[in-house]
Amino acid sequence: MHPTLKPAGEGLRTRLFQVIFESDTPLAKGFDIALIVAILTSVLIVMLDSVEHLNAAHGELFYWMEWGFTLAFTVELLLRIYCLERPHHYLKSFYGVVDLLAILPTWLLLVVPGTQSLVMIRLLRALRIFRVLRLMQFVGEGRLLVESLKNSWHQIMLFLFAVLMMVTLFSALMYTIESREAGFTSIPMSIYWGIVTLTTVGYGDIVPVTPLGQAISTMVMLLGYSIIAVPTGVFSAEVIRSIRADRYSDEACPGCGHDRHEKRARYCLRCGTWLDEETPDPNAEQNHDDDAPSTDPA
Amino acid sequence: MHPTLKPAGEGLRTRLFQVIFESDTPLAKGFDIALIVAILTSVLIVMLDSVEHLNAAHGELFYWMEWGFTLAFTVELLLRIYCLERPHHYLKSFYGVVDLLAILPTWLLLVVPGTQSLVMIRLLRALRIFRVLRLMQFVGEGRLLVESLKNSWHQIMLFLFAVLMMVTLFSALMYTIESREAGFTSIPMSIYWGIVTLTTVGYGDIVPVTPLGQAISTMVMLLGYSIIAVPTGVFSAEVIRSIRADRYSDEACPGCGHDRHEKRARYCLRCGTWLDEETPDPNAEQNHDDDAPSTDPA
Amino acid sequence: MHPTLKPAGEGLRTRLFQVIFESDTPLAKGFDIALIVAILTSVLIVMLDSVEHLNAAHGELFYWMEWGFTLAFTVELLLRIYCLERPHHYLKSFYGVVDLLAILPTWLLLVVPGTQSLVMIRLLRALRIFRVLRLMQFVGEGRLLVESLKNSWHQIMLFLFAVLMMVTLFSALMYTIESREAGFTSIPMSIYWGIVTLTTVGYGDIVPVTPLGQAISTMVMLLGYSIIAVPTGVFSAEVIRSIRADRYSDEACPGCGHDRHEKRARYCLRCGTWLDEETPDPNAEQNHDDDAPSTDPA
Amino acid sequence: MHPTLKPAGEGLRTRLFQVIFESDTPLAKGFDIALIVAILTSVLIVMLDSVEHLNAAHGELFYWMEWGFTLAFTVELLLRIYCLERPHHYLKSFYGVVDLLAILPTWLLLVVPGTQSLVMIRLLRALRIFRVLRLMQFVGEGRLLVESLKNSWHQIMLFLFAVLMMVTLFSALMYTIESREAGFTSIPMSIYWGIVTLTTVGYGDIVPVTPLGQAISTMVMLLGYSIIAVPTGVFSAEVIRSIRADRYSDEACPGCGHDRHEKRARYCLRCGTWLDEETPDPNAEQNHDDDAPSTDPA
Repeated sequence: MHPTLKPAGEGLRTRLFQVIFESDTPLAKGFDIALIVAILTSVLIVMLDSVEHLNAAHGELFYWMEWGFTLAFTVELLLRIYCLERPHHYLKSFYGVVDLLAILPTWLLLVVPGTQSLVMIRLLRALRIFRVLRLMQFVGEGRLLVESLKNSWHQIMLFLFAVLMMVTLFSALMYTIESREAGFTSIPMSIYWGIVTLTTVGYGDIVPVTPLGQAISTMVMLLGYSIIAVPTGVFSAEVIRSIRADRYSDEACPGCGHDRHEKRARYCLRCGTWLDEETPDPNAEQNHDDDAPSTDPA
Repeated sequence: MHPTLKPAGEGLRTRLFQVIFESDTPLAKGFDIALIVAILTSVLIVMLDSVEHLNAAHGELFYWMEWGFTLAFTVELLLRIYCLERPHHYLKSFYGVVDLLAILPTWLLLVVPGTQSLVMIRLLRALRIFRVLRLMQFVGEGRLLVESLKNSWHQIMLFLFAVLMMVTLFSALMYTIESREAGFTSIPMSIYWGIVTLTTVGYGDIVPVTPLGQAISTMVMLLGYSIIAVPTGVFSAEVIRSIRADRYSDEACPGCGHDRHEKRARYCLRCGTWLDEETPDPNAEQNHDDDAPSTDPA
Repeated sequence: MHPTLKPAGEGLRTRLFQVIFESDTPLAKGFDIALIVAILTSVLIVMLDSVEHLNAAHGELFYWMEWGFTLAFTVELLLRIYCLERPHHYLKSFYGVVDLLAILPTWLLLVVPGTQSLVMIRLLRALRIFRVLRLMQFVGEGRLLVESLKNSWHQIMLFLFAVLMMVTLFSALMYTIESREAGFTSIPMSIYWGIVTLTTVGYGDIVPVTPLGQAISTMVMLLGYSIIAVPTGVFSAEVIRSIRADRYSDEACPGCGHDRHEKRARYCLRCGTWLDEETPDPNAEQNHDDDAPSTDPA
Repeated sequence: MHPTLKPAGEGLRTRLFQVIFESDTPLAKGFDIALIVAILTSVLIVMLDSVEHLNAAHGELFYWMEWGFTLAFTVELLLRIYCLERPHHYLKSFYGVVDLLAILPTWLLLVVPGTQSLVMIRLLRALRIFRVLRLMQFVGEGRLLVESLKNSWHQIMLFLFAVLMMVTLFSALMYTIESREAGFTSIPMSIYWGIVTLTTVGYGDIVPVTPLGQAISTMVMLLGYSIIAVPTGVFSAEVIRSIRADRYSDEACPGCGHDRHEKRARYCLRCGTWLDEETPDPNAEQNHDDDAPSTDPA
């Protein structure tokens, strides 16, 4: 998991490491669950605090809870640093930065007043959940997804680039044709309309009002409706390939040359030949021994 | 179907059981069809009754029809209980609870006035149709779908979790950037906007009005437009895998008992035993011939 | 194509048949193209006639053109009847009915005034294009689509039924929760909202205004966004299966048992055995002849 | 890449050719990057210039920058012509036309005033990026996409044609049913609504207001929601087929010249000849041994 993270020395620090960074003992599992609850609650409080009437009614409570969580996360961060052999490795890692960002905005409030707008950074702490999920091996399920996404990323990006190109040209056309009152006030605004339309979001804040504009926009809609097939097709093909690559080996059978065996296969499903050329066939040995007496009557 | 449901004794109760719980005789089929019609009609009446001007015009008719259906369903429920050997098994089953919920709200009106708001529970009776469809073997078609959904459930949930994460971060950003007048009044409200946008629903009740906000929202739209590929790809791969799983036979190998071979397999992939017990193994034959000279010393 | 349609006798009627019902001679091809142009033009005129200011300006022109096309299509229909041996077969076929419906509304205007509302039936004449396209073998491309749609139809219908079920329950819940002013005035209206939301259309004419209603509607959106995967997955799997079934044969090679050959293969790609057991291998014959002299030195 | 484009003679013109038309030397790569930056900047300026308040503030700056880029692109075009052996081949090619269109609108302003509306043509210069990307071999990634799109094009077009047919009929029905006030003022307008609805864009500028109209529009929505599966399925199957097509080798059979074998094939599927010329045919060997006695009479 964290190949570069090692506990510092023996005793308390090792035990702390096992609780905080691993997830094998009951105590470590309890710590993980407490952490998830704390993260979700603190994220919920940041959200609720932004609702005006809730802030008016419970603002003070939220304020102190935020400080409570910040203190708890700070202690947790210090413990993480304390129990590691090389804490700078951790602090420079992705999760180290996230851990720091989770508490920084609140502490900054003491120094620089009026930094409430750092609310988004505060929400980044939600990302910390992924670490815990990873520790608890929930994320394993998603490896196939991430792998397939990585493999199809280039093609999907190229597709999006071509889409943006078409949107730009269609939008410039609409800007020339359509009325300024309808909202097509500039090319960037038309591009905004184009993306809203092509992705089939369709807010309706900017809509074509001239017959020609409406005719062209139906073309954009049909385009968007059809080419959604492209990323979907690319990704589906990738997932199917990943699943298959996972299960089948391409090595040919030394007996008959058949080359589509499940990886777990030990004998060829076509001719029954032992497939693993590096180890001897246990049955062959056995058969040899069994046959020997009966064919050696002398 | 209902392995734990058995008719109680002989005679009338058994005949009742065959009509109500099975679907083999003409009478039972007639009962099923009558039940479907009754369920659909009663659901339709609950719906129409909620339309103000229809309620004003035909409210009384709807009221008495509702009581008529409730009485009919109550009699049906009592008959179901009467003809079963162990009625508590039925009452604790999924369909038993649905059958009870189908009539409870109307009876409750006698005891607790003003429970019209239980209208949703009343509509649950629509679920009863699935039982009849299952009896009439229409639902078999859907088994592949349900199986594939179950298998891809974990990955689709994980995907939705990651999506919600991204929506939360984007929404908090929009909350910081966008005007309160445009509707971005709080982070939860921004998240509502984010989901409306990412899923490409696009009501248009909350739309970005600042150039920066519009630029960021186009990113959310393109994100939503692209990653729809993920659940689709996962599910497609799963359906294809399920169809292909039909290629596997459940018959155990006579040699080692291994029971998951591709149907086209001729030799066990684990122990190399010839699988087709009805025809002789061509290789074995050949070996036999090869051995012949050595066992025939004369 | 039209197995039951045969020309009546010899001479003029047969030649007419070849022009009207077939598409092999230059004259017949010219007739097809003229027909497509006439159909599209007449459909366009019906459409343009419905635009108020165009009707005001060119109403009379449209009126006479409509009569012109109606007369032409009537003559064509009479010719079709004239040149067929059994015209009633044609008149009762799908395209016979469409041909009749294409001219009926205009003739009806003479008898029953005020039947302008039959405009939709008049547009049905657009369907006639498919006949010409079929004749000209453009539609062949779509056979795979139609086949795959037919095979996945049952599952997609079952999926839509389950979706409608969920929409009904969610809509009833929204009807209970949401304000009547926001548009949730009855359960059918809520279902309309539910379908608008789940299919990600999102007009925005009815939108939730209470926090709880908004929370529930995000669930409907995410549901609709995720389960679009179901019809797509089912149909994709079906198309892939059709393509594959088209290309590969399941028959095993008599030599090595390999069972995944392209249908066009004549020799096993694994062991080189002649695959078609019913006809002799031409090479084998040849080899036999070639070998004969060299192995027969005596 | 440009098989018909060759440098003219030796010396300066060849060196220019290598910089402008190729991408192997550091100088050529620098030129490519400078070109991408110039194209993107000039496109950005055309866009920003259309925003009213930016035009008011920086209009003059944009004007001179546009002239700067036009001059630069003109010089580039002249150099391209200068260093080619047959410049007319280049000028008639796709990229030659795009290069010309990129500078024409600005020069036209000198001759014909008031041609600001050529803004769309000016944006076509964005297409020039694809040439550079192709040179730098970024586009190779997209070849699979383009290939798959080409192969599924016919079917997707046929699908769109059938969809438009259905939209037309549904729209004519809505035009008959729905109120003119709601926006269904003509059949073309209803078709606009139909496409907005079926593609799930759902602007909400035209929405049904009668119960019957709402009922029919939910059918259009569910139709659009379901049949998105068709282009997606067709394209997915095509991508999967393309990936698999990688399994085919182009090497011709030494026996009969057939050149489309699966890569795993060992024998020609048409004439049964051993394909792998580097290793001996195991069956042939065996046959050889069998023959041995008959050719070894001694």
